[in-house]
Amino acid sequence: MTLREKAAQLIGVWVGASDEGGEVAPHQHEMEEPPDLDTLLPYGLGQLTRPFGTAPVDPALGALSLMRTQRRIVAANRFGIPALAHEECLAGFAAWGATAYPVPLSWGAAFNPALVKRMATAIGRDLRAVGVHQGLAPVLDVVRDARWGRVEETIGEDPYLVGTIATAYVQGLESAGIVATLKHFAGYSASRAGRNLAPVSMGPRERADVILPPFEMALREGRPRSVMHAYTDTDGIPGAADETLLTGLLRDTWGFTGTVVADYFGIAFLTTLHGVAEDWPQAAALALTSGVDTELPTVKTYGQPLLDAVATGLVPERLVDRALRRVLVQKAQLGLLDPDWDPVPDVLIDPDPSEPEALRGTVDLDRAANRALAAELAEQAVVLVRNDGLLPLRDPARIALIGPNADEPTAVLGCYAFPVHVGGQYPNVPLGIELPTLSEAVRAEFAGSEVRTVRGVAVDGEDADGITEAVRAARQADVVVLALGDRAGLFGRGTSGEGCDAASLELPGVQGKLLDALLDCGTPLVVTLLAGRPYALGRAVSEAAAIVQCFFPGEAGTQAVAGVLSGRVNPSGRLPVSIPTHPGVQPSTYLAARLAQASGVSSTDPTPAYGFGHGLGYSEFTWSGLAVESDETGTDGEFRLAFELRNAGGRAGSEVVQLYLHDPVASVVQPVQRLIGYRRIELAAGAGCRVDLVLPADLASFTGRGGHRIVEPGALELRIAASSTDARFTVPLRLTGPVRPLDHTRRLHPTVTAQVLPAAQPAVTPRR
Amino acid sequence: MTLREKAAQLIGVWVGASDEGGEVAPHQHEMEEPPDLDTLLPYGLGQLTRPFGTAPVDPALGALSLMRTQRRIVAANRFGIPALAHEECLAGFAAWGATAYPVPLSWGAAFNPALVKRMATAIGRDLRAVGVHQGLAPVLDVVRDARWGRVEETIGEDPYLVGTIATAYVQGLESAGIVATLKHFAGYSASRAGRNLAPVSMGPRERADVILPPFEMALREGRPRSVMHAYTDTDGIPGAADETLLTGLLRDTWGFTGTVVADYFGIAFLTTLHGVAEDWPQAAALALTSGVDTELPTVKTYGQPLLDAVATGLVPERLVDRALRRVLVQKAQLGLLDPDWDPVPDVLIDPDPSEPEALRGTVDLDRAANRALAAELAEQAVVLVRNDGLLPLRDPARIALIGPNADEPTAVLGCYAFPVHVGGQYPNVPLGIELPTLSEAVRAEFAGSEVRTVRGVAVDGEDADGITEAVRAARQADVVVLALGDRAGLFGRGTSGEGCDAASLELPGVQGKLLDALLDCGTPLVVTLLAGRPYALGRAVSEAAAIVQCFFPGEAGTQAVAGVLSGRVNPSGRLPVSIPTHPGVQPSTYLAARLAQASGVSSTDPTPAYGFGHGLGYSEFTWSGLAVESDETGTDGEFRLAFELRNAGGRAGSEVVQLYLHDPVASVVQPVQRLIGYRRIELAAGAGCRVDLVLPADLASFTGRGGHRIVEPGALELRIAASSTDARFTVPLRLTGPVRPLDHTRRLHPTVTAQVLPAAQPAVTPRR
Repeated sequence: MTLREKAAQLIGVWVGASDEGGEVAPHQHEMEEPPDLDTLLPYGLGQLTRPFGTAPVDPALGALSLMRTQRRIVAANRFGIPALAHEECLAGFAAWGATAYPVPLSWGAAFNPALVKRMATAIGRDLRAVGVHQGLAPVLDVVRDARWGRVEETIGEDPYLVGTIATAYVQGLESAGIVATLKHFAGYSASRAGRNLAPVSMGPRERADVILPPFEMALREGRPRSVMHAYTDTDGIPGAADETLLTGLLRDTWGFTGTVVADYFGIAFLTTLHGVAEDWPQAAALALTSGVDTELPTVKTYGQPLLDAVATGLVPERLVDRALRRVLVQKAQLGLLDPDWDPVPDVLIDPDPSEPEALRGTVDLDRAANRALAAELAEQAVVLVRNDGLLPLRDPARIALIGPNADEPTAVLGCYAFPVHVGGQYPNVPLGIELPTLSEAVRAEFAGSEVRTVRGVAVDGEDADGITEAVRAARQADVVVLALGDRAGLFGRGTSGEGCDAASLELPGVQGKLLDALLDCGTPLVVTLLAGRPYALGRAVSEAAAIVQCFFPGEAGTQAVAGVLSGRVNPSGRLPVSIPTHPGVQPSTYLAARLAQASGVSSTDPTPAYGFGHGLGYSEFTWSGLAVESDETGTDGEFRLAFELRNAGGRAGSEVVQLYLHDPVASVVQPVQRLIGYRRIELAAGAGCRVDLVLPADLASFTGRGGHRIVEPGALELRIAASSTDARFTVPLRLTGPVRPLDHTRRLHPTVTAQVLPAAQPAVTPRR
Repeated sequence: MTLREKAAQLIGVWVGASDEGGEVAPHQHEMEEPPDLDTLLPYGLGQLTRPFGTAPVDPALGALSLMRTQRRIVAANRFGIPALAHEECLAGFAAWGATAYPVPLSWGAAFNPALVKRMATAIGRDLRAVGVHQGLAPVLDVVRDARWGRVEETIGEDPYLVGTIATAYVQGLESAGIVATLKHFAGYSASRAGRNLAPVSMGPRERADVILPPFEMALREGRPRSVMHAYTDTDGIPGAADETLLTGLLRDTWGFTGTVVADYFGIAFLTTLHGVAEDWPQAAALALTSGVDTELPTVKTYGQPLLDAVATGLVPERLVDRALRRVLVQKAQLGLLDPDWDPVPDVLIDPDPSEPEALRGTVDLDRAANRALAAELAEQAVVLVRNDGLLPLRDPARIALIGPNADEPTAVLGCYAFPVHVGGQYPNVPLGIELPTLSEAVRAEFAGSEVRTVRGVAVDGEDADGITEAVRAARQADVVVLALGDRAGLFGRGTSGEGCDAASLELPGVQGKLLDALLDCGTPLVVTLLAGRPYALGRAVSEAAAIVQCFFPGEAGTQAVAGVLSGRVNPSGRLPVSIPTHPGVQPSTYLAARLAQASGVSSTDPTPAYGFGHGLGYSEFTWSGLAVESDETGTDGEFRLAFELRNAGGRAGSEVVQLYLHDPVASVVQPVQRLIGYRRIELAAGAGCRVDLVLPADLASFTGRGGHRIVEPGALELRIAASSTDARFTVPLRLTGPVRPLDHTRRLHPTVTAQVLPAAQPAVTPRR
């Protein structure tokens, strides 16, 4: 291959599939001149960027368009290499008509890796079916500041939760043959003041113990084939220029062999935003040297500038070869280099239709099975954070359904859902999927009730005029269901989403005023939140009858909420992020040392209103009969414990057993507690189970002063808990023996097994 | 010496001098049992903690009490070694009746190291005169989050400003023979969410380039003899347990030979707050090993626990010897080990009075010369941030002086001023110094005017009832002077000060409501702020006629404000911290990379209302005739430039020439600009001067990827500016040659000389 042919394999071009089934058209992005395919394609092409995710196209015609383009690409280059097509799939395939699943923060709330894996498998199948090879998900950023607009895209504020859920997603996507992409590597979520792309102040230890573990787990256990660098700089080094991270840690230490792809325009940002490269050749050389193999979304620096960089000696050609090898190995793995590779995607019933229009509507990316999955996940992700007994609501009743998200179909969607991400630019194109509003869902759920819907106020803006009407409706109702929250959008067009950062955690706009006015009028009030981040809820924390927190629950989300309101669904979600008490005092998450919490030495108090892991249901669970097999073991040993969990309520329900480790004395400052394991357990009414725990000492490890992971001897405290603020058993433990260094083969999980018992028999004989 | 005698030299005991001239009494601190001096003293004693700063004592009687205690100490131990007595002197000797100078943030505002040095010399003389040896100042923490309660104790948000002013303070204090103490080493100001003592997330590069430079400068150029560790942990390592910092950097690299003292209770906090030591012996061993020589304020871990730690092998006795040597060398330097050492302080006219009461009132710690200095500094520190032409106010006029700080004597004091720090516990004891309220000062200044004073609202709390009366007063006035701001206090008792952190940068309490109500009534309004931190000023930024920002300006502060209002004082202060636009979006300071500022990729905007270095006066200055001698030099060279500055106004005034460096491309992300030099220049009406600049390439250095300080070749931009947002000359420069590594002998300053010119003659022949 010539150098130019090699470089051509390292770039994407941003295209949109044709809705008439013709070839893709280069996408005119505001930051880019559209590339000329006739000029590019003779040298080959690494990637096609978002053929489906750029404009609304019928899936079948899109598949046809993509196939035709692949044929053209293959024909144009002398090696006959097709492009790898990638798409966004943060919460479902980001394409017109594809299922909009709940956003990742809802996955975190469900505490159910197996279900997330099923969802990701379904997403992968849909991607695969239309000819896509790579999905730019999951997001493994650990929430560090809830003001950040992309919190909705994350799984939560604990690295273990993020790691386990993201790993399940990777397993699902990869099981369908799709290249999963871990992002953003690393540190993006800790940007200063929660502002998108702002610099990250963080030391190597915090990075190693909070930011990196989800990546390590997902790489070891999920085997994703791609990683995307983070936009942000950490302590002055931008993600795309961090050789220590992209090559040293990722490949040399962790053994990753896949591709590292650029976050969109991230290599160019080295020049334009970070100022660590003077021009495109320098940016290309820096990124390639650091370990970025593929430039996305389109060619800017890995074209002629990279050739110039090689020519002038800024970067050796062997580094081009290194990236090329990774890209081609991946294409080979995907079968793209097979002589008999067939560009015809599974779904195309006729790859050479005389009348492409006849294909329209023949491919359904939102089948009933998908919707059922979306519904199942949404139902498990609804978090009932407060209930004075009003819920479930009786039916019939006079229900006033009030608020900006009461009758808004897209209120369940995050900013990467197609109708939000792209659809807004095509106001005349139908949404492509069914999105019942909360009003519709509540009316269907409460068929015997009188439901009156009033918007009151908008999600944002200062107009409070509608509050009067809302109060009037509330006064005439038996119960108020208040639908607050966010409107997802991009770069300031929403209140949550990429570039939609919050200055504080007050409810957006005048929603807080609406809430207070409705609390004042005395009708029992249920606050429901369709939101992308947690907000300080002010008086609702003590005065609302109930609070139902949802994080953009996807296309079946309003029905899940309605089901929780009616009692059809027994809520079982748990908070993946704390709900703050005060809108200021950020950043603050549960994963913090003692001095980051209320400490008596500061007048500000970051104690949340509802802590990480909190969530109620309609059943009561009893935790009893703790048995500690041994409370002392070596730094290479393991602890064994058991207890009995019983559903003492009158209906089936799920409890999430959460394990938190408290390390009272360590050589470096530790968080007060951190999640080291969890298990969602469903039990029939009256049923019980024996829960057995095996905790390897490795789980007590942290990054010591020397920068390496160690297990130290000494006292520990295990909190077997219903949430980070509700320990049901507090078990003192002790590690003995020498300080033990760990490597990247360390054990990452406890074993948590649940064995269902007959209703009458006690599970565990208490012993201590 | 026995081990116990050695350890006894490493501890302080907290005492209060007797107001009857008897010996000191051990102080019953809420965190401590009072020590028994009879038990302790036979082994000797390292330090006496705050004999004057603990309770109100007459200075002469306090000096007598301290002298008598020293005699007892000397008599009790077999080596006859006296104790070293230390006091707080953040903004003046923190003792009853001593001058309350402006707080450090006002020193920053004055941009006048020479004046700060004079003040510190005066402070040192007063300390020395009564028998004190060490002062626990200055604070070199660089503001990173204005919500932090101790912002008032800092010099500002730029390391160069902090370093130069703190160095001047050290020079002054040490010139008077007092041991200056650099604090807090290092990182305290960056505590998470601005919460006192909360963990610091920061990497080594940010620490090296922002936090440490003021310490390095003050050590090299001020030669202080003591350093105090920071309470906070940075990336998991508490300050008192950071051997890399306290020994590796401070002593091995920088060559410091003085003592490292504990921040109060900081060693015990290793156990109680940080959890890095299990008990007192472990805490003692960890701190001593790391390099903390003296435990303050009183013995907790360096007594029996340290002896136990040596006995059990937790720490070798040679580390006790190491600390002991430093302590004794310092005592020797102070003359305390001289055989003829005389404990009688300078001020004691009779060291053995038969009637101690006769001494009362014979020592004045607030002499006229002190007050004059306090006034001079206050006048230079008032920052006029906005003026639509209303100022100076005409006299006579009907003035409504409104606000919680309009008639409050202590509104000019920070939390370490004696009347605030201690006086509050003694409500029946007079303040000890004259503190004219703003109302008194304005009445005196505007003798011909009718001044009506109305409080309106309190500094904090929710009571807004007084706004009605305030509005009425405003309607009847020609002009409103609104006195807003803080009440300094400790641990939640104020709105600014140690432990008084802010959840956001909104004005405390309902002051914002008062401001809006007064703006609504249309009378021309001057906002004055007596505050400890900058606040978002809402509508005042566009609607107030003028804004006068003071940072607790000390005992002569209200007269300085009144002088600015009348025009008697031509304001010349410059903002040492940005005044924010939005109360959220923290942390944010001017010293930030491009992506930390408004960048188009985030919906939140931290652009300040008034930037670092901003300040107006009543004269106009013209900047002209830039001459660049060379715009290119080697990485070991220097740039030479000159320009003419002229006071084009009708009265004498001062301009602060500020030099900012912009480095467009570097190997690690750089702040958009940073202060590398400044000079306050006073010019008579019509007078001009030639300003010559010599900028060594060293000033462009930063900490590179390898962790070492380097000068890189490439383009630079020098901004010769009236503020960080008002560059008068933007000069492209270029460094050539190799990357040059620097060590701790690098040059820290530009040369900025100002040569006054005859009024008519142009200073510089423009050339480029």
